[in-house]
Amino acid sequence: MQRELVTHPGAVGIVAHDGERIWLVRQPREAVGVPDLLEIPAGKLDEEGEEPLETAKRELAEEIGKRAESWEPLGSFFTSPGFTDERVHLFLATGLSDVDETPEVQENERIDVDIRPLSELDELIGASLDSKTLIGLLHLRARRAR
Amino acid sequence: MQRELVTHPGAVGIVAHDGERIWLVRQPREAVGVPDLLEIPAGKLDEEGEEPLETAKRELAEEIGKRAESWEPLGSFFTSPGFTDERVHLFLATGLSDVDETPEVQENERIDVDIRPLSELDELIGASLDSKTLIGLLHLRARRAR
Repeated sequence: MQRELVTHPGAVGIVAHDGERIWLVRQPREAVGVPDLLEIPAGKLDEEGEEPLETAKRELAEEIGKRAESWEPLGSFFTSPGFTDERVHLFLATGLSDVDETPEVQENERIDVDIRPLSELDELIGASLDSKTLIGLLHLRARRAR
Repeated sequence: MQRELVTHPGAVGIVAHDGERIWLVRQPREAVGVPDLLEIPAGKLDEEGEEPLETAKRELAEEIGKRAESWEPLGSFFTSPGFTDERVHLFLATGLSDVDETPEVQENERIDVDIRPLSELDELIGASLDSKTLIGLLHLRARRAR
């Protein structure tokens, strides 16, 4: 049985949409034994204690080549409080535009951008297998239903 | 940076309600440095490959002393696919009744039951800091809004 406590610097996840489409990514996830997983753009905080919003801006540019005019916090959560202190901070990013230059991406990151219509939100929620993505999309659907 | 892959047998989380109240639990979570965390009843699969529904029935009895007439799967998710294969299977449990005998609880589990009115669902979602609880409550709210 897993008893050790895994320390983690924390992470961010970004729900990025333009009212019609949502920007998702696919990347290999060897830990869970699937060829790739559909996720919201995300990434780890720098070891040096980066502010979550700064991480989110950096990751949005790195992963989908966008900046956002509006950033709204969607709360945070512990992924698995029984064995790790990993906390994920979620943001809603709108007012998207292309970054002038795509930042350098680490060599070991193989990420495919997957842009989906928001009309598919129910299906995307049903198919989501990743905690941050599921929580981000459930929050988005609740807001759009208001 | 955390690079190791943590193997995990998998877990369950149970959204247990009677239409008026929801059964939550509080327990110490030293991994995340909070005195206790409000969570849905939950637990790990036995090492021997227990079926998630069996785990859920066992944990509901152990943690809140209830059985349920109706069990409905709410899907499953990976808590943090970047570094662990932990997968949580969620269930909706209704038609609750007391178990005849409270099963023996492991000595190291100090769990307090916290029964909340469903009218507080928005506040509970806002205060949830645990992935399975947040996902379970967001699913429940979406169903009740239909």
